[in-house]
Amino acid sequence: MPAPTLRTRARRLHEKADYDAATIHAILDAMPMAHIGHLIEGSPAVTPTLQWREGDRVYWHGSSASRMIRAAAGAQVCLTVTCLDGLVLARSGLEHSVNYRSVMVFGVADQITDPAAKSAHLAVMMDQMFPGRWPQLRPMTAQELKSTAVLSLPLSEASAKIGSGMPTDPPDDLTWPVWAGVAPITLSVGQPQPDEACLPGIPPPIIRFGA
Amino acid sequence: MPAPTLRTRARRLHEKADYDAATIHAILDAMPMAHIGHLIEGSPAVTPTLQWREGDRVYWHGSSASRMIRAAAGAQVCLTVTCLDGLVLARSGLEHSVNYRSVMVFGVADQITDPAAKSAHLAVMMDQMFPGRWPQLRPMTAQELKSTAVLSLPLSEASAKIGSGMPTDPPDDLTWPVWAGVAPITLSVGQPQPDEACLPGIPPPIIRFGA
Repeated sequence: MPAPTLRTRARRLHEKADYDAATIHAILDAMPMAHIGHLIEGSPAVTPTLQWREGDRVYWHGSSASRMIRAAAGAQVCLTVTCLDGLVLARSGLEHSVNYRSVMVFGVADQITDPAAKSAHLAVMMDQMFPGRWPQLRPMTAQELKSTAVLSLPLSEASAKIGSGMPTDPPDDLTWPVWAGVAPITLSVGQPQPDEACLPGIPPPIIRFGA
Repeated sequence: MPAPTLRTRARRLHEKADYDAATIHAILDAMPMAHIGHLIEGSPAVTPTLQWREGDRVYWHGSSASRMIRAAAGAQVCLTVTCLDGLVLARSGLEHSVNYRSVMVFGVADQITDPAAKSAHLAVMMDQMFPGRWPQLRPMTAQELKSTAVLSLPLSEASAKIGSGMPTDPPDDLTWPVWAGVAPITLSVGQPQPDEACLPGIPPPIIRFGA
């Protein structure tokens, strides 16, 4: 992973910053949910979407007609992924915080235009989230593929930030008579619920989300 | 709630868009986690933080030295809150989606500078998340208050987007032999874990997060 750049170098809480590729990959792989920062007439906008990683690049998709896709393609964007892991309750307001793992990726978003390449990337997305499902689906039509845009960023300008563990109150505060510790937060995927038309006897999907 | 503006008017999936104040408030109240879109030298950056609502304004805080705070104060920003509610598995790749509730708020971020006002807002934040806790804490010092910045946006330029329910496959796809339905996603706060120095006999906190 290259050295931190102007944008990825942590200015505060340096001890929480990490530029190691394995750390960045692990956070991206743990949380498909992302927020894309792009511009609308020069002002920032933040759009939620799903991301997936292939090697040293991150991908996301959307309707070709979406405002976010049109604004992001070929433009400077920021993709941020955050896993919220816990609430940190300290003895003072100042020391309260959250435990989290986050990644910010900066760069110019590339648009994948070749239909076969696009289809292959969408298959990877599906396979990561629902292993084995892609070949079971009604195949994508040429028109559907055309109406779907796939964007990508290299992970060359990326940083992670991790907050973990118990509160770090200064020694003088430790005897203050208030509860202190951490409340863990977890995201979980529940039992899949079939829709009314779901044919009987078909096994439910394998789901790997937020692993 | 005012009429949608250039930035909040939904361009796609109009049926999912909502500009009703009660809807927007409910989503903000359900999920303290937010992503702030701001600019770094003209390019977008997205920073995770916590938000809280007071009436028709949304607030967030951070270190006065934080890059996000310095970039956002007095500038155009976008605050986005997203609750991920489920994975929607359809018969075709195109119809796959997620169930979610999200809010985007656009505007120029006001900075609260009066120390008493700042303290009052921080007390509200604490009280919403941990009812009754603020008066139990070691009181904030003047220096701590000075080093904490509080920013705010009116909800005058805000929109919600909600996706819910089962897949909406076209009729011709309904007999395709693949599982279809929804896998619900929930975020939960677990049993609080006291730290080593936590005094015995103190009851654990009341936590209202992601309600």
